[in-house]
Amino acid sequence: MSSSEALSKEKNRIALLIEYTGKKFHGSQYQEGVLTVQQELERALTILWGEPVRAIFSGRTDTGVSARGQVVHVDLPAFRPPLSEPEIFDLLWRVNGIVIKELSVVSMVNAPENFHARYSACEREYVYRILNRSQRSSLLKDTHYFVRQPLDLKAMSCAAQALLGEHDFGSFKSSNSDTSASICRVRRAELLNLREGQLEFWIAADHFVYNMVRIIVGTLIDIGLGKRGVESVSEALAKQDRALTGPTAPPWGLTLNAVRYPDHFRLFQL
Amino acid sequence: MSSSEALSKEKNRIALLIEYTGKKFHGSQYQEGVLTVQQELERALTILWGEPVRAIFSGRTDTGVSARGQVVHVDLPAFRPPLSEPEIFDLLWRVNGIVIKELSVVSMVNAPENFHARYSACEREYVYRILNRSQRSSLLKDTHYFVRQPLDLKAMSCAAQALLGEHDFGSFKSSNSDTSASICRVRRAELLNLREGQLEFWIAADHFVYNMVRIIVGTLIDIGLGKRGVESVSEALAKQDRALTGPTAPPWGLTLNAVRYPDHFRLFQL
Repeated sequence: MSSSEALSKEKNRIALLIEYTGKKFHGSQYQEGVLTVQQELERALTILWGEPVRAIFSGRTDTGVSARGQVVHVDLPAFRPPLSEPEIFDLLWRVNGIVIKELSVVSMVNAPENFHARYSACEREYVYRILNRSQRSSLLKDTHYFVRQPLDLKAMSCAAQALLGEHDFGSFKSSNSDTSASICRVRRAELLNLREGQLEFWIAADHFVYNMVRIIVGTLIDIGLGKRGVESVSEALAKQDRALTGPTAPPWGLTLNAVRYPDHFRLFQL
Repeated sequence: MSSSEALSKEKNRIALLIEYTGKKFHGSQYQEGVLTVQQELERALTILWGEPVRAIFSGRTDTGVSARGQVVHVDLPAFRPPLSEPEIFDLLWRVNGIVIKELSVVSMVNAPENFHARYSACEREYVYRILNRSQRSSLLKDTHYFVRQPLDLKAMSCAAQALLGEHDFGSFKSSNSDTSASICRVRRAELLNLREGQLEFWIAADHFVYNMVRIIVGTLIDIGLGKRGVESVSEALAKQDRALTGPTAPPWGLTLNAVRYPDHFRLFQL
């Protein structure tokens, strides 16, 4: 530990922007005996570098949750010089040639050594997709949560407003989750009605507690169905009681859209 | 044949608006020994009606091609009274409960007996989706054709303009296809650049010849890559020679978006 820490100033850190579908993976983080995004990515990088590589994610996503803009960092061994731009581009192509098709690396760049995929992140943004019409859809079944009863979108939008700002989201945290701080600052909480029953709920915050987005969506759907009042979100924010919020909406509607970092890191130019 | 024709005035015709993913089916039309959309739909309706049902499609879609707005008609036996609205709605639910999840019926209505899913159609509209960026996408792999070399979108849009109006599309027809009339009137031919390399090519015409959209897209991509000149579309339209057009683009980028009928039919109110 101390010797590798001593070398930390010479490490060559690389940041990766990745996409994955929730379907094939048992979530993002390493788990013994099942396929996760971390394992698949580490497998490819380890093949290409010829030695074990550890990938640090901006945060975990659960089984079934997709990502469009997950950010990961990895360190090259300290004795190696930093990769040149063509070398990084070549590596990017090779990684995409190795990982299964449900995972893809969109971009890969050299990162400053003080960059950390998780600790440097200042905002995460998720989108949750709902299909609200009377009949199910074969085309949207893997990306949208299907709700057949009509939803009161006005009530849902109104309730979502209460999420904005800094609150203790203890009521919106899975009861079996860790005891991490549940104070979160929400910058965006917006329900979009796209067309023909296709809804998107967008939420951005400095961080999220376990299952927070899915519990928020489950609560908003309860409100849309008239099972809970519009004020129930504010009430749940005022106390820390999981019993005051709705069910956890299913994972396949959820996508991690983006992870944002302070401007000075200037990572991915897409 | 003649006895059923004699009863044709008393038939109860029902029109269905259906969606399906291309992935699971060997195309739309009946084929011995493989799963097609027609077989799956007929299977469900036959179970529910207790007697064989034949489904007539607006037109065929190939293996791998999806549909968002395919239209089908079926006839109830002539001795039955027309279904009431609640009966039709009940039937719609039951059909969606039987067919595999890659197929869904969006709407079902009584149709005038002079309505014919194929012969009454006055326009079909398709969308072909392309992802044009350097790295493949795990999220769009099933719905977009991935082209990694940069495309000249201006050249492609310009070439697409030549498709508008009435032309003989003999050069844009699979050489092994039937000898049906290849004069088509194109109302819309538009390339949209949505975001981050996501392109959509929209085309609407009174009818299409076999593989026409996919050959048009293959030709436009050739133009975008600089392999063919912008004028090559006009040249191919002036002659009837498959050698003048590009390759047939793969099926998974293609979706039948809508089939349109004269206003007086007033079929689906979505």
